[in-house]
Amino acid sequence: MRNVSERTLAVKGSPIRRLVPLANEAKKRGIHVYHLNIGQPDIPTPKAFMDGVRNASIDVLSYSPAPGISETIEALHDFYADMGVELDEGDLRVTIGGSEAFVFALQITCDAGEEILVPEPFYPNYNGHAIINGINVVPITTKIEDGFHFPPIDEIERLVTPKTRAILFSNPGNPTGVGYTREELQGIVDLALKYDLFVISDEPYRELMYDGHATSILEFPELGQNAILVDSISKRLSACGARIGCIVSRNKDVMAAVNKLTQIRLSAPTFAQHGLVAFLKDPNYKQEIEAIKTKFHARRDTLYDALQTIPGVCCRKPEGAFYIFVKFPQIDDSEEFVKFMLNDFDLDGETVMVAPGAGFYATEGKGHDEVRIAYVLEEPKLIRAVEILKAGLEAFVEQRERVAATAG
Amino acid sequence: MRNVSERTLAVKGSPIRRLVPLANEAKKRGIHVYHLNIGQPDIPTPKAFMDGVRNASIDVLSYSPAPGISETIEALHDFYADMGVELDEGDLRVTIGGSEAFVFALQITCDAGEEILVPEPFYPNYNGHAIINGINVVPITTKIEDGFHFPPIDEIERLVTPKTRAILFSNPGNPTGVGYTREELQGIVDLALKYDLFVISDEPYRELMYDGHATSILEFPELGQNAILVDSISKRLSACGARIGCIVSRNKDVMAAVNKLTQIRLSAPTFAQHGLVAFLKDPNYKQEIEAIKTKFHARRDTLYDALQTIPGVCCRKPEGAFYIFVKFPQIDDSEEFVKFMLNDFDLDGETVMVAPGAGFYATEGKGHDEVRIAYVLEEPKLIRAVEILKAGLEAFVEQRERVAATAG
Repeated sequence: MRNVSERTLAVKGSPIRRLVPLANEAKKRGIHVYHLNIGQPDIPTPKAFMDGVRNASIDVLSYSPAPGISETIEALHDFYADMGVELDEGDLRVTIGGSEAFVFALQITCDAGEEILVPEPFYPNYNGHAIINGINVVPITTKIEDGFHFPPIDEIERLVTPKTRAILFSNPGNPTGVGYTREELQGIVDLALKYDLFVISDEPYRELMYDGHATSILEFPELGQNAILVDSISKRLSACGARIGCIVSRNKDVMAAVNKLTQIRLSAPTFAQHGLVAFLKDPNYKQEIEAIKTKFHARRDTLYDALQTIPGVCCRKPEGAFYIFVKFPQIDDSEEFVKFMLNDFDLDGETVMVAPGAGFYATEGKGHDEVRIAYVLEEPKLIRAVEILKAGLEAFVEQRERVAATAG
Repeated sequence: MRNVSERTLAVKGSPIRRLVPLANEAKKRGIHVYHLNIGQPDIPTPKAFMDGVRNASIDVLSYSPAPGISETIEALHDFYADMGVELDEGDLRVTIGGSEAFVFALQITCDAGEEILVPEPFYPNYNGHAIINGINVVPITTKIEDGFHFPPIDEIERLVTPKTRAILFSNPGNPTGVGYTREELQGIVDLALKYDLFVISDEPYRELMYDGHATSILEFPELGQNAILVDSISKRLSACGARIGCIVSRNKDVMAAVNKLTQIRLSAPTFAQHGLVAFLKDPNYKQEIEAIKTKFHARRDTLYDALQTIPGVCCRKPEGAFYIFVKFPQIDDSEEFVKFMLNDFDLDGETVMVAPGAGFYATEGKGHDEVRIAYVLEEPKLIRAVEILKAGLEAFVEQRERVAATAG
């Protein structure tokens, strides 16, 4: 029997997804599981969006135009203008979620065998798509003690080779919540210009920045032709299932390539594009996004404060997104800890699922004492989840000591 | 300035899309254009589908499960069971249109530098996706005189090399309307088994077969592990904008790879999956599809008969889909003819747009005397369009002779 391709064999399955069956088994045993393991908010999608879908006047559900429905493109141009970024016609194309925008950016910047620099820990699907496309991810290691901000620019510069084509990051960051300062982004921009690299900035969490201003890559006019923005409405509208994002660049060659890539996949989903237009035409749309941000802001503070009660915990308060990346000195294999929480532990019938840290690193051996916590539940639930985590950590350490004593 | 990747530069823009601005200009001059150039039906999408979207009870538009919503997968299993094909759990995954299912099949069967055999003329996006993925399309040339059926199997066998990984075709065929017989598919199946190749069968038009039975690749149990079905609801439900398709295989390794590929792109669009479930639960769903088929069947006969009135026309009656591939001996460059029809011709204020043939061939020089006509309009419009085409061909020949006389 024919084997499948090497490229698909090389894509790693997600450790979070591997652990989901354990959560399902815990639920079958009657345990309540607080899911802080995924980036899926619990916040209702704005009514204007949903009404826009339901009220769309569609007789024949035909292919929408490959670049996006013109009203959707216009509405997105206005949205960027509202944040101070003026785009020319042709600078923006609607994509099937931020995921497709990212794949387009990868395929347009890199041929097989070429390299992209990515600060780690990073969103694991970056690597999956890079592998499928024969592109090598070269990690820029960042540290929890620095709040996962970029290391000094000369450390990054040492990673640039003749095969390097782009620097990629999410800002604010998944999985770390880091929000890069304008100064450190300026360093990246200058480096990109020095070596003529593309900068691919993935900004689905841009509106979810709690300390300071989330600086879009489009705010560096000098980067002009080398800037590619990957964006998505999934998080800021709590509309992950819409599968609507966009790719933006002022580079005409990049956008000509985007046009070809949109044509060969025909079109982005029609219904959600109507929803987005209705949402962005709602005079209250900014307040709606602000309200979502306010919720996450309060949750961040609550979760961060609660985590400080856990002995030895190491994390810096993240500036944005809805994740905290945490080091627990009690843990040397966070996947084992997550399994323990799901298989062997509960506090009064409740437990917590978080994401093991190692899956977010490209460098072997990193992240085993870290976990990502997504604050996608309401504050009282976050407080309770931390109580459970704290008790779980104690029980995990005790169990390990018991096993060690028995072995000795 | 950094250039874009070689792979994106190598993707050809669609000739049809290049010509669309000419159609728009004609419309600005007040000319009515009959669009027979694209595979976009004019038939209303079934009410049950649209109601399923509008009535979906969604509070948080969250990511739907990566493999597809479980109800959608179940409904599709039932749909295949209704056509006599029993699937096991895990054999089917929901995709973002047939396009994504096709990309998955390509990436799973071939690494960069490997080859797929494809009968030409073929759907041009096959080649676009192959180029992006570093895969070589090796054409199996088929002839208009044979109604674009497969050539003798030894001609195909000669094209197999150690790099060949799969045979790909659409059945019934876009752009030719060919519906392969069980016997000729058996030849392909036997060849695939002899060389251990995958067979990727793209069947969005399966329910639109007018003469004989459309044989799905899943109807060859002996092909088992080597069969991959690419499918889509776009055509049979007139729901191209839904962006819902599926990939089906009984090969566990293939489906494990599919699972990883669905995970890294997160999910397929949520709304249209609800629409599909509602449609397939409607007790009248088969009659709805049958009604769509009946319309296209009548159109095929009307268009075919009308085309016979054009002197010298060459085409065989296609068995399925909604395309006729036609050779006009008057034409030696059908792209020039399409331009002439849009720029320089009208019959009482009306003209016709068809698709130039060469864009559907991989072999250089082929298809320049051919066009693809999509019968996506009502019968009276098709009759009128052929009248216009006939007059246009005469005028095109006259103009060419005039130019030649002047030049002479």
